[in-house]
Amino acid sequence: MTSPADRYGFDALDLAVLHERHSTKWRSYPPDVLPAWVAEMDFGTAAPVAAAIEAAVERGDLGYAVDLVAPDLTEAFCGFASRHWSWEVDPAQVYLLRDTMRGIELWIETFTAPGDGVVVTTPVYYPFLHAIAELGRRMVAVPVLPSTAGWELDLDGLASAFSAGHRMLLLCNPHNPVGRVYPEATLRAVAELAERYDVRVVSDEIHAPLTFSPATFVPFATLGEDVARRTLTLHSASKSFNLAGLGAAVAVIGNPEDAKAFAAISYRHRGPAGILGIEASVAAYRFGDPWLAALVTHLQTVRDHLRTQLTERLPEIAWAPHEGTYLAWLDCRALRLPSPQQTFLDRGRVAFNDGSAFGPGGDGFVRLNFGTSRPLVTEMVTRMQTALALR
Amino acid sequence: MTSPADRYGFDALDLAVLHERHSTKWRSYPPDVLPAWVAEMDFGTAAPVAAAIEAAVERGDLGYAVDLVAPDLTEAFCGFASRHWSWEVDPAQVYLLRDTMRGIELWIETFTAPGDGVVVTTPVYYPFLHAIAELGRRMVAVPVLPSTAGWELDLDGLASAFSAGHRMLLLCNPHNPVGRVYPEATLRAVAELAERYDVRVVSDEIHAPLTFSPATFVPFATLGEDVARRTLTLHSASKSFNLAGLGAAVAVIGNPEDAKAFAAISYRHRGPAGILGIEASVAAYRFGDPWLAALVTHLQTVRDHLRTQLTERLPEIAWAPHEGTYLAWLDCRALRLPSPQQTFLDRGRVAFNDGSAFGPGGDGFVRLNFGTSRPLVTEMVTRMQTALALR
Repeated sequence: MTSPADRYGFDALDLAVLHERHSTKWRSYPPDVLPAWVAEMDFGTAAPVAAAIEAAVERGDLGYAVDLVAPDLTEAFCGFASRHWSWEVDPAQVYLLRDTMRGIELWIETFTAPGDGVVVTTPVYYPFLHAIAELGRRMVAVPVLPSTAGWELDLDGLASAFSAGHRMLLLCNPHNPVGRVYPEATLRAVAELAERYDVRVVSDEIHAPLTFSPATFVPFATLGEDVARRTLTLHSASKSFNLAGLGAAVAVIGNPEDAKAFAAISYRHRGPAGILGIEASVAAYRFGDPWLAALVTHLQTVRDHLRTQLTERLPEIAWAPHEGTYLAWLDCRALRLPSPQQTFLDRGRVAFNDGSAFGPGGDGFVRLNFGTSRPLVTEMVTRMQTALALR
Repeated sequence: MTSPADRYGFDALDLAVLHERHSTKWRSYPPDVLPAWVAEMDFGTAAPVAAAIEAAVERGDLGYAVDLVAPDLTEAFCGFASRHWSWEVDPAQVYLLRDTMRGIELWIETFTAPGDGVVVTTPVYYPFLHAIAELGRRMVAVPVLPSTAGWELDLDGLASAFSAGHRMLLLCNPHNPVGRVYPEATLRAVAELAERYDVRVVSDEIHAPLTFSPATFVPFATLGEDVARRTLTLHSASKSFNLAGLGAAVAVIGNPEDAKAFAAISYRHRGPAGILGIEASVAAYRFGDPWLAALVTHLQTVRDHLRTQLTERLPEIAWAPHEGTYLAWLDCRALRLPSPQQTFLDRGRVAFNDGSAFGPGGDGFVRLNFGTSRPLVTEMVTRMQTALALR
């Protein structure tokens, strides 16, 4: 099924085989629906990652994972950050998490009080919004703004949110769902505002390895010592190596006092990491570069293919420049549908995420998951066309 | 390494190989310490379980697990419960959990108020006690009582705790750490008290498959319709098939109103199950019987071996009759040590759990994990002897 140009078979997926998966992506809709919603790719994972999981099974190594710090994962992540972003992470600042969301929740609980505002740049990964609401904090939305370069952070909006006294920002870069990888100048401006108003920043950088050239990913904590001290950075191999169901992530805590507070949270409340998640992540960070490079090249090709398809076949749908992640943020407002997501699902049998779930600025959008082959992306567009023809 | 009588190699473990494990059992102490603490066995898992994990890896099926209900797991668990305990579980009552402790925590949060008492039969699995304390409830300890048959529940103590208005009981059967599998008559007496005082029961039955003949495990919820309605039953393949780090468990919710309350808890707050935990559990429940039968036979042999060793070599240590689990509850009070656990660790280089962590009644005890080979159990006793000789 693979060609020399596609040695990992990224473009040679078999829908019948995919339907055998047990993950929620493939089990939540009837079999005639093409699922392109939750952030799981249709590829497997890198061979060294699969081998690491199998080796752990061979060792019978399926018991309780270590807690708080996983030295192998720390070492592997630091190496990855150095190679990919020239970020020399201090290993003493690296902690183990079950997943990045748990880090966000713990930061909200630890460093804000009930009723406090938490600033988010919507539309944004909806679990951010659920966490804020369920923990009894207030969402302070500063929606991103359109520009010719892609979606931009609203720096004035952030300044006024911070000056109103809201002291925690949840940053998402590369930005899920809008696909922007913020340039260093933008991040510096955010960092300056954070310093000026003494704001704590949680920087979700889980999609960083999926940045498309010529965009460059800049870790927020590398912008200066003060920035690093006020930042919790969250990473995981789960998005880039397709391991969302295994349960492992990394927190880089730039401030020893914050690290102390984190370590003081109970094991029970932090939640256990998955032992195979750790094993898989270590292998991904250590040995996954060749696969990841091919994946990023493929995803860039698929992105371009999707753009061509949309431009030619569904010109009413707008899509801002896209620099990272395999999640396309499609502006369907010109279609004047009550719910584009529902229309595409009901009439086209293709499942996207409903943009309105992502907070202010999301109405009229859908999030399309293009972590798949070009033929399946073509099929998605065909189904969208079918849905719209049936209007 | 295996003999015809030991086709799974349970008695042929290699300590050097075990030291290659990455789990917290093997990573928390220096290499000269023999770890016999946290509830992980030194065997691997059953071949069909390993094969199911490998098949999921092959499918690239490592994404987000389904939520709330995993139909395959429900079907597999119901079959297992029927075959092993003649318990015909209504599939509609079966829900997916990340782990049994999460079920206990959610029940405490949902059905008691801060400050309420929660009844526990100490010594008991210490996360019960942490959950109660961290959730701001009060531990109401009703310690078990010694008898010639093994540890017994204090029925009068339970009656007075219930009559004092404490309306939730956390039951653990087979009882970790005391190793008792309560007879039906005892459970009926508890059920009658629960009915009389309208007490909700959380029955942690995670060790049920590890019951040693002639003891018989009786699921609490089978004792009657009223009992079933007031009971949350918790099961997982993680203890019997050695999968603690994978993250999957089963809740049987005997009351549709309770199930509604459970389903209303947010995905975020319930916590995600691990996709490979589900895969592994399904295979364990469906295809694991032959391995499990051999394991139980082996563990029974090891239990008897440990008893012989202790009787012959450390007669000051008492051990009540033991009917289930691979966790031995050793009474070291006659040694008159400030901390037997610390003495065995420091002077014998063998790591047990400190009995005092298990609540009232635990001081002077250690919990020894005999989920290993007879030679390694002999080695544990040798190290205990060494420690005591150095007094």
